Amino acid sequence: MVVDLDEAYEQIESHWDPHVAGELNGQHVKLARVEGRFDWHHHAESDELFFVHEGELTIRFRETEDVTLRAGQFHVVPAGVEHRPVAEEECRLLLFEPAETRNTGNVESEKTVQEEKHIE
Amino acid sequence: MVVDLDEAYEQIESHWDPHVAGELNGQHVKLARVEGRFDWHHHAESDELFFVHEGELTIRFRETEDVTLRAGQFHVVPAGVEHRPVAEEECRLLLFEPAETRNTGNVESEKTVQEEKHIE
Repeated sequence: MVVDLDEAYEQIESHWDPHVAGELNGQHVKLARVEGRFDWHHHAESDELFFVHEGELTIRFRETEDVTLRAGQFHVVPAGVEHRPVAEEECRLLLFEPAETRNTGNVESEKTVQEEKHIE
Repeated sequence: MVVDLDEAYEQIESHWDPHVAGELNGQHVKLARVEGRFDWHHHAESDELFFVHEGELTIRFRETEDVTLRAGQFHVVPAGVEHRPVAEEECRLLLFEPAETRNTGNVESEKTVQEEKHIE
């Protein structure tokens, strides 16, 4: 299966609704369209990679400077580090993380994904 | 650290010389500039993701149809599957695989990376 990012994002109807686009070595490749502010959260045991395919994403941190990513840039948020992704306009993201990672990490909110969705 | 793919590829001087650009959860994100034919090989226990950032890559398989990837497309080669990446013109790749993965898999050749290189 070839995954074409531009085509795959068309299958995602809502913001902050990551879809699994690939699986390897116990890790997931997820795609998400995001806009606005996500919840503050951390993942106790999982590092998380944010790669921006289109648009711009700012990742806020409690104790260190924000990181802003544009298309073609990535950043790894280490396990245990509280963060809050924010996008002023729609941004199209690719995420790498362990398959068992919950999107809102230690927080349960209305943004928590209850059922895994996959790119077809 | 923000990794900008376009800037990072400028640090890579040779073809088929993957550089580690990120590490998370025991996995490596590697960047490579490739052109020409790589060796036939497989990775006994590691799935391998090929994402094309720029250019076009064909992955040949012994028993199934070739897969051709253009910019913004990815494919996962499952563990144990023999494959041969080929690029007629220069192609800029992102790879995702376990940190211990050897680039030529089961094969030792002049293309085998002996010492890990990192994007600065």
